[in-house]
Amino acid sequence: MVKVGIVGGTGYTGVELLRLLAAHEQVEVVAITSRAESGRRVDDLYPNLRGHYDLAFTEPQVAQLAACDVVFFATPHNVAMNLVPELLAAGTRVIDLSADYRLRDARQWSSWYGEPHASPELLAEAVYGLPEVNRAAIAGARLVACPGCYPTAVQLGLIPLLAEGLVDPAHLIASAASGVSGAGRQAKVDNLLSEVADSFKAYGVAGHRHLPEIEQGLADVAGTPVQLTFVPHLLPMIRGIHATLFARLSGEPGDLQALYEQRYAAEPFVDVLPPGMLPQTRTVRGANRCQIAVAIPQQRDTVVVMSTIDNLVKGASGQAVQNMNIMLNLPEDSGLRQVGLLP
Amino acid sequence: MVKVGIVGGTGYTGVELLRLLAAHEQVEVVAITSRAESGRRVDDLYPNLRGHYDLAFTEPQVAQLAACDVVFFATPHNVAMNLVPELLAAGTRVIDLSADYRLRDARQWSSWYGEPHASPELLAEAVYGLPEVNRAAIAGARLVACPGCYPTAVQLGLIPLLAEGLVDPAHLIASAASGVSGAGRQAKVDNLLSEVADSFKAYGVAGHRHLPEIEQGLADVAGTPVQLTFVPHLLPMIRGIHATLFARLSGEPGDLQALYEQRYAAEPFVDVLPPGMLPQTRTVRGANRCQIAVAIPQQRDTVVVMSTIDNLVKGASGQAVQNMNIMLNLPEDSGLRQVGLLP
Amino acid sequence: MVKVGIVGGTGYTGVELLRLLAAHEQVEVVAITSRAESGRRVDDLYPNLRGHYDLAFTEPQVAQLAACDVVFFATPHNVAMNLVPELLAAGTRVIDLSADYRLRDARQWSSWYGEPHASPELLAEAVYGLPEVNRAAIAGARLVACPGCYPTAVQLGLIPLLAEGLVDPAHLIASAASGVSGAGRQAKVDNLLSEVADSFKAYGVAGHRHLPEIEQGLADVAGTPVQLTFVPHLLPMIRGIHATLFARLSGEPGDLQALYEQRYAAEPFVDVLPPGMLPQTRTVRGANRCQIAVAIPQQRDTVVVMSTIDNLVKGASGQAVQNMNIMLNLPEDSGLRQVGLLP
Amino acid sequence: MVKVGIVGGTGYTGVELLRLLAAHEQVEVVAITSRAESGRRVDDLYPNLRGHYDLAFTEPQVAQLAACDVVFFATPHNVAMNLVPELLAAGTRVIDLSADYRLRDARQWSSWYGEPHASPELLAEAVYGLPEVNRAAIAGARLVACPGCYPTAVQLGLIPLLAEGLVDPAHLIASAASGVSGAGRQAKVDNLLSEVADSFKAYGVAGHRHLPEIEQGLADVAGTPVQLTFVPHLLPMIRGIHATLFARLSGEPGDLQALYEQRYAAEPFVDVLPPGMLPQTRTVRGANRCQIAVAIPQQRDTVVVMSTIDNLVKGASGQAVQNMNIMLNLPEDSGLRQVGLLP
Repeated sequence: MVKVGIVGGTGYTGVELLRLLAAHEQVEVVAITSRAESGRRVDDLYPNLRGHYDLAFTEPQVAQLAACDVVFFATPHNVAMNLVPELLAAGTRVIDLSADYRLRDARQWSSWYGEPHASPELLAEAVYGLPEVNRAAIAGARLVACPGCYPTAVQLGLIPLLAEGLVDPAHLIASAASGVSGAGRQAKVDNLLSEVADSFKAYGVAGHRHLPEIEQGLADVAGTPVQLTFVPHLLPMIRGIHATLFARLSGEPGDLQALYEQRYAAEPFVDVLPPGMLPQTRTVRGANRCQIAVAIPQQRDTVVVMSTIDNLVKGASGQAVQNMNIMLNLPEDSGLRQVGLLP
Repeated sequence: MVKVGIVGGTGYTGVELLRLLAAHEQVEVVAITSRAESGRRVDDLYPNLRGHYDLAFTEPQVAQLAACDVVFFATPHNVAMNLVPELLAAGTRVIDLSADYRLRDARQWSSWYGEPHASPELLAEAVYGLPEVNRAAIAGARLVACPGCYPTAVQLGLIPLLAEGLVDPAHLIASAASGVSGAGRQAKVDNLLSEVADSFKAYGVAGHRHLPEIEQGLADVAGTPVQLTFVPHLLPMIRGIHATLFARLSGEPGDLQALYEQRYAAEPFVDVLPPGMLPQTRTVRGANRCQIAVAIPQQRDTVVVMSTIDNLVKGASGQAVQNMNIMLNLPEDSGLRQVGLLP
Repeated sequence: MVKVGIVGGTGYTGVELLRLLAAHEQVEVVAITSRAESGRRVDDLYPNLRGHYDLAFTEPQVAQLAACDVVFFATPHNVAMNLVPELLAAGTRVIDLSADYRLRDARQWSSWYGEPHASPELLAEAVYGLPEVNRAAIAGARLVACPGCYPTAVQLGLIPLLAEGLVDPAHLIASAASGVSGAGRQAKVDNLLSEVADSFKAYGVAGHRHLPEIEQGLADVAGTPVQLTFVPHLLPMIRGIHATLFARLSGEPGDLQALYEQRYAAEPFVDVLPPGMLPQTRTVRGANRCQIAVAIPQQRDTVVVMSTIDNLVKGASGQAVQNMNIMLNLPEDSGLRQVGLLP
Repeated sequence: MVKVGIVGGTGYTGVELLRLLAAHEQVEVVAITSRAESGRRVDDLYPNLRGHYDLAFTEPQVAQLAACDVVFFATPHNVAMNLVPELLAAGTRVIDLSADYRLRDARQWSSWYGEPHASPELLAEAVYGLPEVNRAAIAGARLVACPGCYPTAVQLGLIPLLAEGLVDPAHLIASAASGVSGAGRQAKVDNLLSEVADSFKAYGVAGHRHLPEIEQGLADVAGTPVQLTFVPHLLPMIRGIHATLFARLSGEPGDLQALYEQRYAAEPFVDVLPPGMLPQTRTVRGANRCQIAVAIPQQRDTVVVMSTIDNLVKGASGQAVQNMNIMLNLPEDSGLRQVGLLP
């Protein structure tokens, strides 16, 4: 059995890791840390886990974590980058769900996160954990930086167009929307039900931290710098991300439906919908899956791509488990065969 | 592999059966019927099933269904009672999720459902599919009548009290609430999001069809007639039932926490919460589980029990699969190991 | 123009007072206080008020408040009881939306709120602001204690039965449910959308602070002590309270529909629904109104009353304005003519 | 008193007209029609109106309607165009909330609505009821075609840019989202709470009927043809429209904040938010108001405008009342002074 540790287990990506790993036959969660809830049983905080785990939160300790084969960081940014060097040195492999290792440029990281990076020497080694782009590198990685939720939905939606050079890379647009669980489990007035239910708004229009990560990933695929206007919105619901992507066609696009189907034909967790079917966040709820549709409204020169994921699964914990499976040469869908919960 | 057929597969209990059975290693769904959607692929109607089933809806035909080992009826009342006799005659075992075989008294059935019963001769044979009460009988049954969603939550909540004769059986009260999926997938103005979101109301106060079923089941346990005041309410959400139950203590109750824990100690799908923890519908979302708490507010003479299930799982399709497992001597939790989806 | 001050204006009852008073022709809000938001424009925090007020939050100062004709306290408990004596001494009339003056017994207050009462000498003078019971006393009051939201819904529902001695006063049951705005606008994980959306739970079963207030009020009406089993629940929505009330009939009840209609015939804000119609929280959303229905299911001996209000209007700020109108001899519905927002 | 008739009063724009007109001192609703609900009291269908109207639905009859000063059509398309000629002939003024008279080109109308127009001779006379563009023409109109909900939000958001020629008119993008009430009060599976709650999706990507209306209006303002890529989405909530608009700047934009503020300075129902504040649908809930913000993310060459309205108020019934006030030379905000309901 693979021994797994989770740092920062009280948040939503932590409980989601536990939900998914409960169905994973080859791993055992041996440690889950939380300073605030140290000593409390996991299933006291998350009663959906009763009967599935006999585990309590502990203070994070390097020795305990270093004894694991794999450690997941389900923490806010600024935690992993301080602990990872020691864990790697101990031979533990790390999958970081936070933003600490997603950008390759330490100065860019600092400018968006407002502080120096604590282990910039690892930025070059860290593999960006989008299996649909980096599967081979992930397999050999010691340190994987899991993509953010918006970046996963946006990149999977735009990659086929940019890889083929079909659209203007300097004027991409992403109008995306997320359920409130994307904001985490922190006590903030802004995320109270009474503040965000029955309402919809854009936020972070002046600059969202996921923007540089998306532009970095898309530029890799395009082979040229890209510029994206990225407007995230907050949905009055818990789970789900939907990205509506707009790009100007550079010329005759050919059969885009076929292009998308071929690009993702071998991908177990990307599902290009048949023509005429549009994705809904509910059809991927709880599942490690990205569903995508592509259209050219009015046969004009603007292509529209719709891409949807569950932000906590393919946008976070599910993708992290997928990365772990690839790193450990386990079946890529171990622990990830859940059918979306509909209705 | 056990061959399974589903009659009436377009409703929510139908898609939920498919979701659960996708994780069941010993069964194969070979037929799913729908008059309205005949010919349409199942995953076209329910895109969460894409990649999990290669199946289309067919017209219901007795020959095809009779070739199955087990047939589930996920239909409104008045369908099963017409088809079941032929299927039983063909040696197929039947699990009916509808109300057709839940009441033993054909006249009572007719008075609540407004029509004669089409196969009253089977009412005596049909086993009421609440495993926590009837496990042995279910194992040998040809025909199992799955309990309704409210009846499951209410009965599991009150059984320990009535079995021990601790409360006045003539003045039980159930104030229960259900998500809208309990009303099914029919085109009705009353169930539009714009009609029922952001609102709460009681309904069926004058008489709900689940009342006689609950009173029948509780009387069996109590060994005496019971009277229940049953007020269901509609919650502005999709899934979940919560029953708040009130009963007058007849005398010294003793340790009710211990009573409940002992009564359900061997039950894989009933979870008595520790003292001080109250159930929430979200902690059983998507799981085949009933979570229960018991309390005596102010140490007066009224006991309060809170009981919660997912109406589509332990209140319908999950319980149906549990019954199937018992009937076929499979592990009782096959296909039912899903962890609740939280948040 | 009546000069109005509001203490604690950043919470939901504060903004709701402003919404209602914007439509009140005889009053002017001259001061609104908040320590945390001092200096910030009211319409910066609550953009729905843009164009309706030219007002900023200020630090609470007795001198400024004492210059008002009426001061509303829209604060948590433990604020009003410290400031009110000075304001009364200055001749200002006070309407307290908090719990500080609702209980007549200072020791009982202390046992529920865990601290000594700061101005117990005023408890006897404070008038409980339920106009349907105390209109005359309110008219002459210097200090009105506005009822809580649950207490308003429960008392209005049970008063006709208790006033006529038709039910057993020692075994009343209230199964009530509230939208999340009832929990206020504080940064608490428990009230995040991701924690309470799509879910339903009971809370405070062991003892909710609204219980003694309800029992005190009902005992006054009944002329005898009453005992209530009170179970509040949390609804996955913002506004609305629905109370489902159960009582055992002592004898022949007569025509309960007529009883309720007569009891409230002259009440502008209590609406007894016609037979067969059940209240919904959405039909009173935003309106200062209590809608009530009464039924005897199965013609047995338990009466069920359903009572619904908007917790922020008839359950708080609307009732406060109604009290102010009565105190100042203004038309009772000034500022309170809003039609419920449906859908 | 102005005598008002409403055709098709059972839908959401019908009840919303009644809610708003209840607060309008200069009008009296004398007739409200519905074939399906003829004879039923209005407040039996909509209990929020109890005490505000003593009115029942009637069969639509030209004579009764022709006796009104103003008739609102709150109907699906294809109703008004058959009745309006007779009403106009009788001297009654008409405000049509449906799509029948919004497009000036009958052939274009037919191609989008799939049938011939029944009174194409009136298309030239009908005034498009967007007061912010056509106030003078509305004042003298016999027939006003109220804009659709999306068209109102999108046009108000883009008008300042197009009027000044600041952006490329051939590549506008609108990513808009609507609450479910925009789909009306029809019995459709697609709009059940269980189908659309907790989910988000695009729809009508291939072509939405509001597209030609928007392009017609924007072309008028721009003085040149425009092309808009319009993607509507469905929000899991009842009320509210939010449009996120993207346009490519043609050159130096100057001070866009000042441009927007000046363009709408005299408009009572358009509120340009201060810099840094973004609109939310909840802050206009129930109010006849459009709130707008403008930004240029990363100081690149794409401008983003966010525009929000309540689809049933400024997007339908409120705008209709505003048009009526202008037509009848009443204060433009009569009946429209409601403050948004927040939270």
